[in-house]
Amino acid sequence: MSVQRLTVAGLGLIGGSVALAARRADPHVVIRAVDEDPHTLAFALREGVADEALSTREAVTAGWFAPGAADLVVLATPVPVTVRLLAELGRLGYNGIVTDVASTKSAVVAAAGRATEDGAEYRFVGGHPMAGSERSGVEAASATLFNGAYYVLTPTGATDMAAFKVVHEFATGLGARVISIDARDHDEAVAVVSHVPHVTAAALVELASSRATEVGADLLRLGAGGFKDMTRIAAGSPELWTGICMDNAAALSAGIERLSAVLEGFRRSLDAGDADGVRAWLTAPADVRKSLPAQWVPATSRLRELTVPVSDRPGVVGIVTTAVSRAGCNIEDIEIDHRSEDTAMLRLVLTDEGNAEALMDDLRDRGFDPSITPLEEA
Amino acid sequence: MSVQRLTVAGLGLIGGSVALAARRADPHVVIRAVDEDPHTLAFALREGVADEALSTREAVTAGWFAPGAADLVVLATPVPVTVRLLAELGRLGYNGIVTDVASTKSAVVAAAGRATEDGAEYRFVGGHPMAGSERSGVEAASATLFNGAYYVLTPTGATDMAAFKVVHEFATGLGARVISIDARDHDEAVAVVSHVPHVTAAALVELASSRATEVGADLLRLGAGGFKDMTRIAAGSPELWTGICMDNAAALSAGIERLSAVLEGFRRSLDAGDADGVRAWLTAPADVRKSLPAQWVPATSRLRELTVPVSDRPGVVGIVTTAVSRAGCNIEDIEIDHRSEDTAMLRLVLTDEGNAEALMDDLRDRGFDPSITPLEEA
Repeated sequence: MSVQRLTVAGLGLIGGSVALAARRADPHVVIRAVDEDPHTLAFALREGVADEALSTREAVTAGWFAPGAADLVVLATPVPVTVRLLAELGRLGYNGIVTDVASTKSAVVAAAGRATEDGAEYRFVGGHPMAGSERSGVEAASATLFNGAYYVLTPTGATDMAAFKVVHEFATGLGARVISIDARDHDEAVAVVSHVPHVTAAALVELASSRATEVGADLLRLGAGGFKDMTRIAAGSPELWTGICMDNAAALSAGIERLSAVLEGFRRSLDAGDADGVRAWLTAPADVRKSLPAQWVPATSRLRELTVPVSDRPGVVGIVTTAVSRAGCNIEDIEIDHRSEDTAMLRLVLTDEGNAEALMDDLRDRGFDPSITPLEEA
Repeated sequence: MSVQRLTVAGLGLIGGSVALAARRADPHVVIRAVDEDPHTLAFALREGVADEALSTREAVTAGWFAPGAADLVVLATPVPVTVRLLAELGRLGYNGIVTDVASTKSAVVAAAGRATEDGAEYRFVGGHPMAGSERSGVEAASATLFNGAYYVLTPTGATDMAAFKVVHEFATGLGARVISIDARDHDEAVAVVSHVPHVTAAALVELASSRATEVGADLLRLGAGGFKDMTRIAAGSPELWTGICMDNAAALSAGIERLSAVLEGFRRSLDAGDADGVRAWLTAPADVRKSLPAQWVPATSRLRELTVPVSDRPGVVGIVTTAVSRAGCNIEDIEIDHRSEDTAMLRLVLTDEGNAEALMDDLRDRGFDPSITPLEEA
């Protein structure tokens, strides 16, 4: 990995797993961990999660965020802490690359932008690994947590091309598959596929539990495997999820409103005794759900190389990589060949998924002159 | 098993699994299967699911529902078919025991009552094994489907004590754990722990899918393990679930309305920026969900014997066994010792779960004179 000096701030399930997976990808990487909990720091040192471990105050004093002190800082803290650290890293003069793992991105991306305006010298790329567990804390961390998971990066008009390449390579090295998405689009999407489902799972448990209290019987005993599967995530940390819900309140609220409207549509058919309507309503999601792959299987052959001549300025990598993800294509590798002071050839190795023709049209519409060729197998 | 001649009508996932589990419990049981699909019948014979297999019409002609033709008939058909068969078995003079596996019970229990009024000679005990799978059909059937699952029996004022004992023993032999509940209470309970969750899973898929269509991107790729766990049941057979929803329409509709109200309460806190309210709302279900046991572990020691002198008339077994289940106690075994023409001693072997004192008070309030003693271990 090009990242040889890694600092992880916030050693919970995700931060701990980032450290463990980075170590698995490259045993030579030097890992520093920052956390406020002495037990977590002791655990991290004892179990080899990190080579060095300090509190934030100690890390600042030790110069861990000084210029040149790390190749990559991963902020794996709650959103409000991440926002504060982004400002602090700027003030401390850190000038490497920074990424985060927050499950909502708009606030963090905006904070990084403000830090840059205030003179921060680091280069930021927002990230969100789509992996988790109902367990939490560094004790639950695992080197394989990201295997086969999607890992969202949210480049903006200000994202540095070389920094994006480093974070892309880092995330891929953790075992994940990278998707590029605009931060706001990301937040609306995770509201629908993650935050609304979590709240709904909690609501289902609350409904069953309150009904059980009313009838004075242990209804929950009757929950078969389906109920347990559906509500497993409701056991997740209320503290963590309160933060996520508040950070993504607008999109979450809109998602719940839409879910209620979908349920209300079903209830109208049901109350009207309309079996055909009920059947049609159930059939569409059954078909969609059946078509979901159990897990991503990495492509091993039939790679393609997309080459795009670009001006080497911030923003280009965001436009190109989000276009690639939008077309359903997957970026295996990124190369940047500089041709002159301000022009470069962006080379993306893509797997054979997605709609390459739509991608080419999209890029041409945006003023690029892309070309794509099959890669010979090694 | 006291059931030596078993007839299963309807050889889907549940009917097929009943046959396989009964065979595993007792290799000597003779199993007849009735189904309308020739491929299912051929599969059942080829794979040893049944010893004989016929269509309903052929089974009637062959006298499979004639007086004395079976010890137990299990109706594992959709509710409308089950209701029809209950009437037909009465007309054909079948005089053994009948149970069913429908996931809603009120309509079936009422149909059995009507058949009895019309002169049916069989003894009926309603049942619902709380086990399933997103797969369907006899090919998905398994001898272990009921292992550790709850199996609801719904005795009424008309339920014969000896028939209840046979069906209880049969369900226990399948690997399940029996709970006695009134049919209407059961239907309200499963609406909350099974039917509302199923519809909600479908609604979550519909929401994500329609949102993905709007933004022209493959949002569903972002669904991590939680989304997949929550929506797995949405892949279940729309045909089967349309029947279940229509059969339990009133309780399901009321459950959805309550779920929407619970979600609306959350949304109010969220929209108001009330983090404490959001945290409190998330904490209660997280605690409840964490307390749910992963699976029932059979008790192996500390059994208790509950003895209740009763008059040997229908209805008594329903009153006593539903009181036992209401108190959270579990019936391992039932014995009925007849003392005279119309009095008997009901002996229930209970595990050490539940509130035995509350049970004793409840039974005394209902005019019984129960006693309970620890059983010595064998």
